Amino acid sequence: MAGLASGDQGPWLTPYDLDEVRRKVPMVYVEALPLRLGHDGELEAVGMLLTATEHGGLQRSFVSGRVLFHETLREALTRHLVKDLGAMAFPRLPASLQPFTVAQYFPTPGPGFHDPRQHSVALVYAVPIDGEPTPQDDALDFSWFTPADAMDPLLLEEMVDGHAQLLTHLLATVGRLG
Amino acid sequence: MAGLASGDQGPWLTPYDLDEVRRKVPMVYVEALPLRLGHDGELEAVGMLLTATEHGGLQRSFVSGRVLFHETLREALTRHLVKDLGAMAFPRLPASLQPFTVAQYFPTPGPGFHDPRQHSVALVYAVPIDGEPTPQDDALDFSWFTPADAMDPLLLEEMVDGHAQLLTHLLATVGRLG
Amino acid sequence: MAGLASGDQGPWLTPYDLDEVRRKVPMVYVEALPLRLGHDGELEAVGMLLTATEHGGLQRSFVSGRVLFHETLREALTRHLVKDLGAMAFPRLPASLQPFTVAQYFPTPGPGFHDPRQHSVALVYAVPIDGEPTPQDDALDFSWFTPADAMDPLLLEEMVDGHAQLLTHLLATVGRLG
Amino acid sequence: MAGLASGDQGPWLTPYDLDEVRRKVPMVYVEALPLRLGHDGELEAVGMLLTATEHGGLQRSFVSGRVLFHETLREALTRHLVKDLGAMAFPRLPASLQPFTVAQYFPTPGPGFHDPRQHSVALVYAVPIDGEPTPQDDALDFSWFTPADAMDPLLLEEMVDGHAQLLTHLLATVGRLG
Repeated sequence: MAGLASGDQGPWLTPYDLDEVRRKVPMVYVEALPLRLGHDGELEAVGMLLTATEHGGLQRSFVSGRVLFHETLREALTRHLVKDLGAMAFPRLPASLQPFTVAQYFPTPGPGFHDPRQHSVALVYAVPIDGEPTPQDDALDFSWFTPADAMDPLLLEEMVDGHAQLLTHLLATVGRLG
Repeated sequence: MAGLASGDQGPWLTPYDLDEVRRKVPMVYVEALPLRLGHDGELEAVGMLLTATEHGGLQRSFVSGRVLFHETLREALTRHLVKDLGAMAFPRLPASLQPFTVAQYFPTPGPGFHDPRQHSVALVYAVPIDGEPTPQDDALDFSWFTPADAMDPLLLEEMVDGHAQLLTHLLATVGRLG
Repeated sequence: MAGLASGDQGPWLTPYDLDEVRRKVPMVYVEALPLRLGHDGELEAVGMLLTATEHGGLQRSFVSGRVLFHETLREALTRHLVKDLGAMAFPRLPASLQPFTVAQYFPTPGPGFHDPRQHSVALVYAVPIDGEPTPQDDALDFSWFTPADAMDPLLLEEMVDGHAQLLTHLLATVGRLG
Repeated sequence: MAGLASGDQGPWLTPYDLDEVRRKVPMVYVEALPLRLGHDGELEAVGMLLTATEHGGLQRSFVSGRVLFHETLREALTRHLVKDLGAMAFPRLPASLQPFTVAQYFPTPGPGFHDPRQHSVALVYAVPIDGEPTPQDDALDFSWFTPADAMDPLLLEEMVDGHAQLLTHLLATVGRLG
């Protein structure tokens, strides 16, 4: 954290305050697409979390989370990667913070992706993973998918809104689409 | 605006509310570096605003402003470019929203740039300008600087924190540094 | 041309010499994806050339051509855009020469795209077009396709090897895929 | 190598042929900037080779080399990294082949950088190094420089033409310039 006597990384807002703020300004998010790369850098697999929705359904997603007040983007990325993938995932953060892409989520229909909770602007990074991710907290599973398997229409349908498009964009960028 | 009966683009927060929110979450900003390009795309000049500080000093800056709740990044970029450069500037927004770079501003000393008002995360775009910018609102002047002139140490000192680094980054990217 | 008494832009190699060189080293190419952008930068259409193959078939392609000895990338891009789209196309070359992507073409099966003529490495740029392209030389037609129309499987099949993938990559980058 | 019974990676051209080709077409090069990154991705040091010039002087440079006929960019990058830094350097090739920047070298004065041997177009990549580079072949030394040390004017003067600019561009991109 920049210029703070750093304590625990717990919430800086009460749930009530966070709800209030979420109705007033867009929230800053970071998202990370976990990659398994071969020794020559070729993409071997993309990793996704499986979680239960509040309605009892299942959904796939990449790592995603809010940037806290006073927190740098690197700190936020590291915190969410550890929180979601565990301490043995060994993610490789990039030297440059230029994101792979920017995703916009809105609580109402229209342009951009949909997130009923809030309007958020997410900086999206592709993050090679050297270690062994283990699902944490509420996640039921973490699985790797080859580029071919990742484009399975059934899998794409399970993904939270926007993440199927991020996956497609990633595969197009590394020349592994279709 | 996404999914809203669009009204005027006035403040969505009272000044009091905005102050409150600014102490709780990072704010989403867009910043635009106005470029004058030659017919072959070569950078001819970079544009900067001159404004008065509240303490009576002068400072140079690029176009910069907050993204409103429900506003897309394109809408925010367009709104701030018109607000700062006038309706005859004819900016060229990029086809892709991947920013040139990301700038982080913190209200406390430490990593990142300094902004006493708030913690913000700014998506920075290089935006070619086809028309004639005219300074609006509080701006005293808008001027174009050739790459050589822009690196004048006196000019760099006049710039708001972070913008001299954005300028250097821009010139390095287009091969016009030093 | 860098440091040359610039004459016409004619071939610097006899056809015989060019054939010889093509069997020995990879050739440097530039490729340009013509874009029609809305006033806010949104992609409205992608442009493609229609040409006849030597076997009497038809194929779609983007602008593509060799970089000559002593020629800068900007000169090569400009030359090929004028040669293929005419003098009234008014292409917008980017301020930075960082390509959108790099495409590799090989004369033999394997990784990369296929080009029976040669091994080439192409720097690919997305180039907004302000004017009116008119097909030149051997081209039979130049047409604009909306993002939705551009993904027509019949159209993708008509494209020269590699260009359907470049198109998909472009649409993914600007959030207009699927 | 694509579609070839791969043999040794020796020259595919006799020195005489290579000289001939170098006077006729631009050559495709790859260049790699070796990076030492911290656990959070922050740039700690940049690596440079020290070699003797044919006139008995000394010069600093990054990894740089020609792409051979039938060779992919990944193969060329890997080959030159091993050739210059040894087998224990463990470079991390990127998932995407989009270069950090493109450098143009011309044998004559004018725009671009100078290389008396040839006209070349170099795809430049920033490559994190996990292992221990050891100088090979003609290199006298390989050293790491912190961002601050790397900007020493005496060091910049020792660098081959173009590489000081690549270094400056890199440091600007990761926010470590000045």
